[in-house]
Formats: sequence, structure tokens, C-alpha cells
Amino acid sequence: MSGRRAIVLATGNELVTGLVADSNSAFIAAFLTRMGLGVVRLAAVADDLQGLADAILQSAKDASFVVCSGGLGPTRDDRTAQAAAMAAGKKLVPNQKALERIEEIFAAFGRPMTESNRKQALLPEGSIMLENPIGTAPGFCLPINGCLFFFVPGVPSEMERMVDEQVAPILRENLGIAGQVFAVKVFNAFGVTEAALGEAVEGIADEVPGLTVGLKASFPQIQIILYGTGKDAKALERVMEQAEKLVNERAGQWVYSSNNKTLEAVVCELLREKGQTLAMAESCTGGLISHWITGVAGSSDYFLLGAVTYSNQAKAAVLGVNEKTLAEYGAVSMQTAKEMALGAKKVSGADWAISTTGIAGPDGGRPGKPVGTVCIGIAGPDGAEAFCLNLSFGDRGRNKILFATAALDILRRRLAGKAVEI
Amino acid sequence: MSGRRAIVLATGNELVTGLVADSNSAFIAAFLTRMGLGVVRLAAVADDLQGLADAILQSAKDASFVVCSGGLGPTRDDRTAQAAAMAAGKKLVPNQKALERIEEIFAAFGRPMTESNRKQALLPEGSIMLENPIGTAPGFCLPINGCLFFFVPGVPSEMERMVDEQVAPILRENLGIAGQVFAVKVFNAFGVTEAALGEAVEGIADEVPGLTVGLKASFPQIQIILYGTGKDAKALERVMEQAEKLVNERAGQWVYSSNNKTLEAVVCELLREKGQTLAMAESCTGGLISHWITGVAGSSDYFLLGAVTYSNQAKAAVLGVNEKTLAEYGAVSMQTAKEMALGAKKVSGADWAISTTGIAGPDGGRPGKPVGTVCIGIAGPDGAEAFCLNLSFGDRGRNKILFATAALDILRRRLAGKAVEI
Repeated sequence: MSGRRAIVLATGNELVTGLVADSNSAFIAAFLTRMGLGVVRLAAVADDLQGLADAILQSAKDASFVVCSGGLGPTRDDRTAQAAAMAAGKKLVPNQKALERIEEIFAAFGRPMTESNRKQALLPEGSIMLENPIGTAPGFCLPINGCLFFFVPGVPSEMERMVDEQVAPILRENLGIAGQVFAVKVFNAFGVTEAALGEAVEGIADEVPGLTVGLKASFPQIQIILYGTGKDAKALERVMEQAEKLVNERAGQWVYSSNNKTLEAVVCELLREKGQTLAMAESCTGGLISHWITGVAGSSDYFLLGAVTYSNQAKAAVLGVNEKTLAEYGAVSMQTAKEMALGAKKVSGADWAISTTGIAGPDGGRPGKPVGTVCIGIAGPDGAEAFCLNLSFGDRGRNKILFATAALDILRRRLAGKAVEI
Repeated sequence: MSGRRAIVLATGNELVTGLVADSNSAFIAAFLTRMGLGVVRLAAVADDLQGLADAILQSAKDASFVVCSGGLGPTRDDRTAQAAAMAAGKKLVPNQKALERIEEIFAAFGRPMTESNRKQALLPEGSIMLENPIGTAPGFCLPINGCLFFFVPGVPSEMERMVDEQVAPILRENLGIAGQVFAVKVFNAFGVTEAALGEAVEGIADEVPGLTVGLKASFPQIQIILYGTGKDAKALERVMEQAEKLVNERAGQWVYSSNNKTLEAVVCELLREKGQTLAMAESCTGGLISHWITGVAGSSDYFLLGAVTYSNQAKAAVLGVNEKTLAEYGAVSMQTAKEMALGAKKVSGADWAISTTGIAGPDGGRPGKPVGTVCIGIAGPDGAEAFCLNLSFGDRGRNKILFATAALDILRRRLAGKAVEI
């Protein structure tokens, strides 16, 4: 047992066989982190009585608070209450409050209550019942070997409400929290390797007290994650501001958001702020940029047209690309990219248009234009320009993502009046 | 240590603080389950040297095989190799093969290699390097206290390929699986609830010896997964064929692939077989269908044009939708959907065109046309038709996926000469 250490447990055969990915534990871990606890591990185990009891006892050794989700349902493979009783050396006894609550629910739905539902009201002796406002499975809170356990159902919507409404107040009381405060800040960067970004931000954790700096490659972007801890919320806020300033000084040329926004959301915000509109002419990105932009709610206000012109005929017919340009320079060229952007701008009447034409692979590469070659055109209020890059990542899906991100990042820089660095 | 027990470990501060949900572990757990191992737990721990080394030693006690993902990157918070060395009581030494591989990658990109990249080639003495075909971080395989550990990067695409290509053969050899044979077959279905599909395939596992049947909702499709085991490859093949026949008999009306192909891959195959071409006119799906189709290698042979016509002006200018139609019936109508498909077919010269126009939300719903309404048009060699559906899932991202899948499924049925069931 150790003062401020917490463990997140999850139970279910569907988890250990990989049939379902566990999303509950991330929610609970984030909650415990916000409460000022250090989560030492997340663990998922099978619906097996002895295995679950062992996991409970091991957790009681390694932490002082544990939240365990799952296994409280009415069926035979729901064994969490029994395992908790076994670990605690207690009997399972009917909990009057839980039984009344379950009866109420069935009465409200006018359905008969089965024996297996009655089973859900059996809790280890000495438990405090945790009410489930939207389901039949109650949770419970029980100290085991000096560690405080919270058991909640595995249904995400029920678990989330119970953690916020039932677990939080008990935990706060037990922590006597006034003490520790926490903060997390996520920056997204593009156009830099993880290693180079790591070197750029390396010293920051040493310069700012109470700060940890993490990097996470989340293709094609890299995230800089600042974790701050302290005794005082105001002081921590200043620490985080100081850290943010250092990140912007040292890695600002690659960072496109300081609040974990997606690149397309940043671009959409800039368009909305400026009251300007956008069109797209995509060849090698095949509609991905349009898909991203239209994923942002409200994008119909400024997104007018996306033309996925895969064939040369479509480039000419829809965008008015000159057939001489295609013949002379080829479809993958700065000239074609520029004409595509100008054509999309013209046919849609948008203020801005970006275009992509390139070779995503696996085939289609040729000398001088290998797989990974992409030409990006941008047409705006002040004219048009084009860029040619080689960004190969060796697989079609990743190349499309990389090309689309590069094009959006060029647009973002132009919208913000910044230099394009490639 | 115990014969057929396995543990899945994941490392990262972003996991224990709940910033990111761990999806790698489910993939790895499913892999280990298919290999015939019993996964006793999934555990996620912080990027903390001592904590990670402890977790490694504890895992070595409880299982005979462990796959650990994450913490192999080039930065300071990537400490897995060091923790593994500590747990094994070995030194970190430069691995020549790993170093050469990293040098090759940097040479190919023409970028300078940094000291921190060189760090990635430091592996615990006695490790077998596991090649990473699409990234700089190599993995490694190392026995620790009689338990065999596989360390792979945390980037999902890298981890998945390395598990399939590098971990699987070594594991097979160590398991001495010549005796046991395994087979997995995944069917993808759309347009049916999990409950109804479950009822349809319910009896199959009882009728076929050595077969387990699982269902997995993988939005918007549902997968039917057949796991077969046996002593003889030929006999198992017959078992799987028998099971496949039963699945097709009982759920064939919803199944679009029996080999885990995506819907767009199935559509592309049909187009290639028939030597026909495709165009798209997308409004509410915002380019997603084009993105899916162009994700299939070789799609430039039959995909001619995708028009993402968000504004009415674009619908008229690019697709020639009659302004009277838009005024009289509205943009979200069967009439507009049909004209969009006909327009895309005409401007591109394609054999087939599909269109979508609808309300993905969160706003834009109105009486008679709530969020979730989608009209799908299809124009082919024998004329045009349109369908109007309400498929709301209550969130913009999911609605786009649902609309796009419904449109592609209608195209698939028409290409295959099947009835459209909605």
C-alpha cells in the first residue's frame, strides 16, 4: 500500500481475448490523474474467480485506491462481487438499498424481476452501495487490506456517470484533497521527426519545476505532452504558461495547435475568422482532405467544393486544366498542381483552393518521380503557387495521409500569414 | 512461469494518465488467443524505468510469453530497452543489424541521423532484433527468467505488421505448433443488427466440431469470426468450408465478404472484373467514399472522378443539377440525388456513378428531414434510381461513415446483380 498510488482494473473475457478494446480504463485513469493520484498501472483480467481475486489482492498491495470496472451484470460470467468478497474474506449478503433500487427499476419498466437480477443486490459484507442511475447493476465501495476499492459496471455510460457522481465524492473525502493539483497540455506538431522535436524540447522539463515532458508519435503528427503537478492551482497555471512559452520558442515552427486540436479544425477556425471560403482539387489524396474538412461541424459555411479528379479527362473537364500543360509537364507537376488549384477556385468561386497531384503508390513511380512525390498547389486572394515534395512512407495509405497533411499545413501557414517551410 | 499463459504489456505515460486509450493490447491479445495461448492479463504501465522493470519481472513469473508494446522511440521517455536490460540483468549493447537498418532508412530519406536515433539500435545483450519494415524503431525478442519477451513499438501500424511478420513465426516455433493447427475466417456484414446476426448464426458452433463462432461489432459493419482448431490441416480446411457454407446460407444476405475484405475492395474488384468505371458525387459524405475507393491500390484504373459538391452552386456548376430541382425538392431529395449521380456519370464519362445528399448533423435537421436522413442516387448502364434512408447514429462522424457504407453497399449489390434490401 502506498499513499497516492492508484490502479485501474478491468474485467472481462472479451478484453483478454482481444475481442473488444478497453476504453473504460482510459476514462478512469484520466479521472484518477485529475484527482491527483499517480496511476501505477491499468490491468485487465478474465472473468475468472480466482484470477480476479488474485488481481484484487495484488492491487491492494501496490496501491491505496483501485477502481475496477466490469463483471457486475446479472449473468453467470459476472463474478466481480464474489471475487471481491473472496479477496476481502467477507460473505456476500443482500444489500437492502440495492435490492430496493433494482425492484424500483423493474417496476418502472413493468417487467418481471428474475432471480439473476436479484443476484445483483448481493454485495460483500461491509460494502457501501454505489447507485447506478441508468442501469440495474449497482456498484460498491469496499476497503480490502487497507486499500479502498470502487467497483463499477463495465457499460461505459453507466461507469462514467457513476465515477463522476458516486466515486468522486468518496475519493475526495478520503484524499482530504486540498493538496495536489494537476494539469495536462497537448501540442500537435507536423513536419519534424520525433527525434529532432525531442532534441528541441529536451531541456524544458529541467528548467520548469514540477513539469514532465512527453512526446508521442501519432502519425503523421507528433504530440508534445506537458504534465504539470503542484500544490497550488494559481502557481501551476503559471508553470504551465511558462512551459508553453518555452515550447513555442523552441518548437513553434512545427506546432500547429497548443490545445490538441486537429489540423483541419485549426484551418477551419482560420477560415471562419477571416470569413473566407475553400475549395479542393485532389488527385493523389483522393478525397481525404475533403473528408477531413467536412468532418468539422459547420464546414458547409466555408467549404464549397472538393473535386477528386483522378483521370486527366476529369482534370480538364471539371477544373479546366489545360491539356497542353498535362501533355508537356505531366499530371504530377507544379504546373498541373497550380492549374488545378486555380480551376477549383474559379469553378467554385472560393477564396482559397488547394490541390494535390502525386504518386501514392504502390505502383506508378518512375525515374525522377518516385512513389512519394507530391505536388501541392495553392490559390488564394493574392495569386497561386505550387510546391513539390518527396514524402514517401512506403505505403499507399500513409502516403495519402502525409500528402493531405502537408497540403493542409501549407494552407494553414498561408491563412495565418506565415512562411511555408519545407 | 506457466506453459501456455501469456501477458500483454503496454507502456506509456499517456496510457496511465488516460490521455490515450490503449488499442494495441486488444490486437495483441487477439493474436495470442489465435495462437492458442491463454492471456491472463493486459497491463499498462508508465514510462518509468523501475516500474517497467518490475512489471517485466512480475510478468515473467506469471506467464511464459509476453508481448510488450511501446517505449522504443528515440526520445528520453522511451525506456523499454533499458528496463528490459535491467530486468534481464544484461547490458545495453549496439545491435549491428539494427544500426544498419536505421542508417539505411535515413540514407533513403536523405536526412541526417541524430544521436537519439542511434540510441534505438541499443538492445539488451542476447536479444534477437525484430525488424520494423515501416519505421525506425526496431523491436527485439529476449528470454527473461525463462519467459520469452517480444518488444515491439507502440505505433499501431508498425506494431501490427511486426506482430504478424516477426513475432508470429518465432512464437510458432517456440510453441512447437506442428501439432496443433489453427484457422480463422472473418466475414463482414452490413445492414443488420448484432442481435439479429447473432440469432442467424447461433447454432453453427454446435453443428461443426472444433469451431468457435464470435461476433464483433466494428462500426458500421459486424464481423462474424470463425475460429477453428484441430490436429490436421486438411481436416480443418474441410471444417472451415462446412462452417463457411452454413454462414452463407444463414447470413448471406448481409455478408459482403468472406475473407475480411473491406467493402470498397469488394466494389473495386467487381469494377475491375467487369471492366467498368466509377464516378462519385458526394455531398453529406464529404469525400469519404472517394477516399475509401482511392485507398485501394490500382483504383486509378477505374475511378475517374469524385465531386464533393457541398454548396448548391457547386451541385449546379459541376454536376449540372437543375436549379429548379434544388428549389422545388431541396438539396436533400431523391430527385437531387438522382440528378447528381447522372451529372457525375455524364461529366466523367464513367459507367457508374453514385451520389449522396443528406444531413450528417449535428445541425441542419428539420421536420420531415431529421439528422440522419440520406438520399443515395445511383446511375448505371441501365438508367438511374434513388433511395432515401434514415440511418441516424447521432453523431456527424458516424453518420458520414454510415451514409458512405450504405451508398457503397447499394453499388455493390447493383454491380453483382443483386437486389437492394433496405
